[in-house]
Amino acid sequence: MSRINEKTLRVIGIGPGGPRQITLEAVDAIAATDVFLILDKGDRTAELTAARTRMLDEHARADHRVVVVPDPPRDRDPVDYEAEVRRWHSARVDAIGAALDENLAEGGSAAILVWGDPALYDSTLRITDRLVEQRDDLTVEVIPGVTSASALTAAHGIVAHGVGEPITTTTGRRLATTPDGADLNQIVMLDSALAFRETASPDDVVYWAAYVGTDDQILVSGRVGDVTDEIVAKRAEARERLGWIMDIYLLRKHG
Amino acid sequence: MSRINEKTLRVIGIGPGGPRQITLEAVDAIAATDVFLILDKGDRTAELTAARTRMLDEHARADHRVVVVPDPPRDRDPVDYEAEVRRWHSARVDAIGAALDENLAEGGSAAILVWGDPALYDSTLRITDRLVEQRDDLTVEVIPGVTSASALTAAHGIVAHGVGEPITTTTGRRLATTPDGADLNQIVMLDSALAFRETASPDDVVYWAAYVGTDDQILVSGRVGDVTDEIVAKRAEARERLGWIMDIYLLRKHG
Repeated sequence: MSRINEKTLRVIGIGPGGPRQITLEAVDAIAATDVFLILDKGDRTAELTAARTRMLDEHARADHRVVVVPDPPRDRDPVDYEAEVRRWHSARVDAIGAALDENLAEGGSAAILVWGDPALYDSTLRITDRLVEQRDDLTVEVIPGVTSASALTAAHGIVAHGVGEPITTTTGRRLATTPDGADLNQIVMLDSALAFRETASPDDVVYWAAYVGTDDQILVSGRVGDVTDEIVAKRAEARERLGWIMDIYLLRKHG
Repeated sequence: MSRINEKTLRVIGIGPGGPRQITLEAVDAIAATDVFLILDKGDRTAELTAARTRMLDEHARADHRVVVVPDPPRDRDPVDYEAEVRRWHSARVDAIGAALDENLAEGGSAAILVWGDPALYDSTLRITDRLVEQRDDLTVEVIPGVTSASALTAAHGIVAHGVGEPITTTTGRRLATTPDGADLNQIVMLDSALAFRETASPDDVVYWAAYVGTDDQILVSGRVGDVTDEIVAKRAEARERLGWIMDIYLLRKHG
């Protein structure tokens, strides 16, 4: 699909965290790539960066290069959330475009590794869309990955929904706005506030996981009224101990 | 986690269809398994059965065994949908339990391979829950897989949602009942009737894929008012030509 002299930018979903939860297709894509762009987010995700480096050590060509692109600073609790996200995305587009110019020969390939799947609550594809608009030398390839939602339900050994029922996937920020009737089964991501404490009834059931798919995985499930305190405590303890946390849960409406 | 003399039943998500869209974890699980249970659904999915067999040829131990479990007949358009699903599940539970008894030594392992991810619109985990209730010699392990939803969005090179927005995952049968406000981004599975023709407005955008992840993959995307006829025609043509079809789409609300 590449034109002559075109550059390829691969956006590779590498799964939720476990080094074996990557697909063969992603392994192939890593092995075909010259330059890996790492969006450096600082200490906050040092553990994730290390895990990504281990994946490259295992799957990339011996002569691969890693280019760290400093991630522009971002206000995580702005007054105008969408405007801040847009501003931050623009700054990222410029930084990544510059990194491609500096590091990639014509016909060469770069890749960005994305935890989970690139289609879910990740801004990389919004950046690459902007890059493709701005320049005519770039082909983007997307490799799907196992989502943290799939890893969550697998770890708990459950189906995400009752027979034939719909599922809502949403964020902690939006959880309270899920319409009635769309709240049978909710998979909630990016929820540092554990917003279900405000929206769920005690008889709803929650399936929670932190660091899902990794050696640090923690699972708690049960009636909201019974397990909420345990989730709050385990989350706080783990975040303190490891210095960061990534968690997700499924909230299933009672009855 | 296995007790002595216990049997292990693995439910392995093998991804949406491409032979490279399986994870290393699933490859490991296949290589560790003695007996593979194939739920024979007859000619309807002969192509899928063949693809699964190719995966076993590639990843399973040379001495693995394959046991075909005849799938009980199912009424796909019953008056009482949920009752018919329950009846069909019970018959499957009995058939699979008998297959385990006949084919698995103590300490042995069996696996069922599931397209996509076992947590989404697949009944295998409901069956294994029933088996675990009925017998005390069985440990179930679940391996997550790439969903056809992730393969769909990757093939189209898109994020599944606008910035921070929720996603509804549902079936064609339920599409018309999605509440207002939950219909911004809908991923629709199991929709042989292409129900979006009844629910979408012409300015909504649809991203459709058939046989996603395979060599036969077909993609169509655009304004509902512009591409619906193309989807209907390509779906009918492909189904006629290949003898079966598996398709999925994302419906994104305009504005």
